[in-house]
Amino acid sequence: MKRIESPQNALVKHWKKLVTTRKERDKSEEFVVEGFHLVEEALKQKDAVLALIVSDGVEIPKEWSIEGIHIVEVNQIVAREIAETEQSQGVFAHCRQPEHAEETFASYKKVLLVDAVQDPGNVGTMIRTADAAGMDAVILGKGSADPYNPKTVRSAQGSHFNIPVVKGDLFEWVNRVKEANGLVIGTGLQNAVNHSTIEPQAQFALIVGNEGSGVDPELLKLTDKTVKIPMYGKAESLNVAVATGILLYAYSVK
Amino acid sequence: MKRIESPQNALVKHWKKLVTTRKERDKSEEFVVEGFHLVEEALKQKDAVLALIVSDGVEIPKEWSIEGIHIVEVNQIVAREIAETEQSQGVFAHCRQPEHAEETFASYKKVLLVDAVQDPGNVGTMIRTADAAGMDAVILGKGSADPYNPKTVRSAQGSHFNIPVVKGDLFEWVNRVKEANGLVIGTGLQNAVNHSTIEPQAQFALIVGNEGSGVDPELLKLTDKTVKIPMYGKAESLNVAVATGILLYAYSVK
Repeated sequence: MKRIESPQNALVKHWKKLVTTRKERDKSEEFVVEGFHLVEEALKQKDAVLALIVSDGVEIPKEWSIEGIHIVEVNQIVAREIAETEQSQGVFAHCRQPEHAEETFASYKKVLLVDAVQDPGNVGTMIRTADAAGMDAVILGKGSADPYNPKTVRSAQGSHFNIPVVKGDLFEWVNRVKEANGLVIGTGLQNAVNHSTIEPQAQFALIVGNEGSGVDPELLKLTDKTVKIPMYGKAESLNVAVATGILLYAYSVK
Repeated sequence: MKRIESPQNALVKHWKKLVTTRKERDKSEEFVVEGFHLVEEALKQKDAVLALIVSDGVEIPKEWSIEGIHIVEVNQIVAREIAETEQSQGVFAHCRQPEHAEETFASYKKVLLVDAVQDPGNVGTMIRTADAAGMDAVILGKGSADPYNPKTVRSAQGSHFNIPVVKGDLFEWVNRVKEANGLVIGTGLQNAVNHSTIEPQAQFALIVGNEGSGVDPELLKLTDKTVKIPMYGKAESLNVAVATGILLYAYSVK
């Protein structure tokens, strides 16, 4: 077992950058998850785990399957250095970002397309919700929060290891779904029908958009239907992750 | 128009405490909202606004109805002192917490009961969602985040000024709804039916619970039905605000 005690260690510096900067995550295609629950989820995808990082005083739960996993022991100074939260549990996994080959894309029958949703917590909650609703993949278009931002990872509660999360061009994805005869459903206010008028679908894409400006109008031109969720009180809109939950449970599930 | 330039001013100290401590908010039954959107929402309930606070360089939009509103001009030092966010817009409203008389409680036909939901963002999103779904009130039981925490207020996007948000004893509220022949719907995993088996209701209470431990089992003993939202993928659960959205749109809306 390897042990690291200096925050100046090159690997510690790399971990810290993975936690704090998108640039480092994009360049290396790696990320760090923190806390017992997320590390346990990561370990279910052993290929993704480059190292299990354990702070002094933290015991690895007996039920974890850690055979073949590279373990790095660190002191509390190093643990604090890479911790995202103040109440850190002192356990981390240094992970590879899962890759998803283009050949598999045709197998995704139900996809959530995320257009420039900026809040990492919203994006993470949407990944978790898409997983729960039985979606096949989440596609993040330009301008969306980094799916490997620690806040996104925390909000997704491990769903990154359950369903493909793919960065891609949403126009290409809309065409892909149309060519496969799936229904492309946009969300918006103009020319929109009440969301409950559409039945559950075996094959579809749902497009949700930016917290302030919604889905790109150019994308909405390409959809088969645009839906809106009616407001029955005085609120002007729903949180985008809540709206996504209502819509995915309406269309994904029979 | 009053002008304040010193962060040592007693009123500025009071505002700062309202932003940072629950104790001050509870004791004074006041709170502070920040940013153009929230201040505009607050101004729709003029009785609630004790003062409109405007920083140097910020112009009050012409369409705001500010007749009779007490305006305090502050310099940027004071504005920074009371700002919750780094990208502050320099406009605030010092507000009274709306009061809701017990005599009005019987008029609430559809209520969301929140049992110890701890995250302020979740509680705020749930208030916004309850408003959107046409609920009559949100009742926060013991252990829930302060509805007047700045994060809660921000997530609720002004819905505090649209529907009653009441701190109360959830056992009393369950009894109140039962006595009025409303359906009391709990959320949980044991003895639970699929959420979609229950029809929209003209009169009901929905109880949602803590992020980790769910609804208090003692409360669930008193419900008419316990519902669960099925998991179709590998996620273990939904975010509580997303689950609340799915359930409120299933039961509140015909």
